[in-house]
Amino acid sequence: MPTTLVGALVSGKPNYITIAHVGIMDLGSVSLGMSKVHYTNAGIKANGTFSVNIPSVKMVKETDHCGLVSGKTVDKSALFKTFYGKLKSAPMIEECAINMECELIETVDFPSHDVFVGRIAATYCDEAVLTEGVVDFGKVQPILFVMNDRSYWKLGDKFAKAWDVGKELRVRI
Amino acid sequence: MPTTLVGALVSGKPNYITIAHVGIMDLGSVSLGMSKVHYTNAGIKANGTFSVNIPSVKMVKETDHCGLVSGKTVDKSALFKTFYGKLKSAPMIEECAINMECELIETVDFPSHDVFVGRIAATYCDEAVLTEGVVDFGKVQPILFVMNDRSYWKLGDKFAKAWDVGKELRVRI
Repeated sequence: MPTTLVGALVSGKPNYITIAHVGIMDLGSVSLGMSKVHYTNAGIKANGTFSVNIPSVKMVKETDHCGLVSGKTVDKSALFKTFYGKLKSAPMIEECAINMECELIETVDFPSHDVFVGRIAATYCDEAVLTEGVVDFGKVQPILFVMNDRSYWKLGDKFAKAWDVGKELRVRI
Repeated sequence: MPTTLVGALVSGKPNYITIAHVGIMDLGSVSLGMSKVHYTNAGIKANGTFSVNIPSVKMVKETDHCGLVSGKTVDKSALFKTFYGKLKSAPMIEECAINMECELIETVDFPSHDVFVGRIAATYCDEAVLTEGVVDFGKVQPILFVMNDRSYWKLGDKFAKAWDVGKELRVRI
């Protein structure tokens, strides 16, 4: 799964937490599976907004750090340069090439987890990761997360076109 | 996102569809964001079960094919060797190294999409992708999907330990 940094205002301060248990719902919304023990959950519920930021492999130490320490005891507001967009209450990270600010539209309640579903209000992108106007994940260099051996992986090579490479198996009737 | 093949019985026959808009909810459940136009949705609703199978890069043509043709017009039941587990009604793919059979526990209803949330009833794994008893994604060779330029990517190298590499940024107070 892609590793993200989720931003929210908690008690009026920007806070960032590492979340890789994310999901895509419909084409304009995302989900975050967040254990109820986390400090950030209250801020998302209070403001009804959050951000999803995509860190690069160069930010792996800062990214991992945000998952190691809680906003309850450590102020993470100065770790990154924060900016705000149209929602005003979803802090985003300038150092991340891709940022999405989201409005909370639903919370799926599990015994141990809040799954926050957010409608993306706006997406911001650093021009440096574009190739011919399209986001190029080879330039984004996302941090991929594997839970079972607790490891971070790089993205490898692009090797095929989707909705294309399988065409030769199609039998016309 | 990881590309998966989702299995369901539709009108009594195994059907497989390519879904990369997946998510992790709590630690035992997953989500599938599936456009309501798909043939498979009715089968998931009727049986209350589905499977999530992880194809390898070697299966990219078959995987893409399952996203190109609909079960409405093409019988995909013989594309793979099908097996069943404890739920009896969630067809799984032998050729995929990892299979999860899931019980539908909730459907998040979007105008264009059904987001099916499934509790994992059992996970099956090919011993060939284990390293010292743990799933090794370097051996699984998943197909990663990027929507914006409609492309498939390989997983790259493991480069850091999670909950570890960021420790040096932690300041003891």
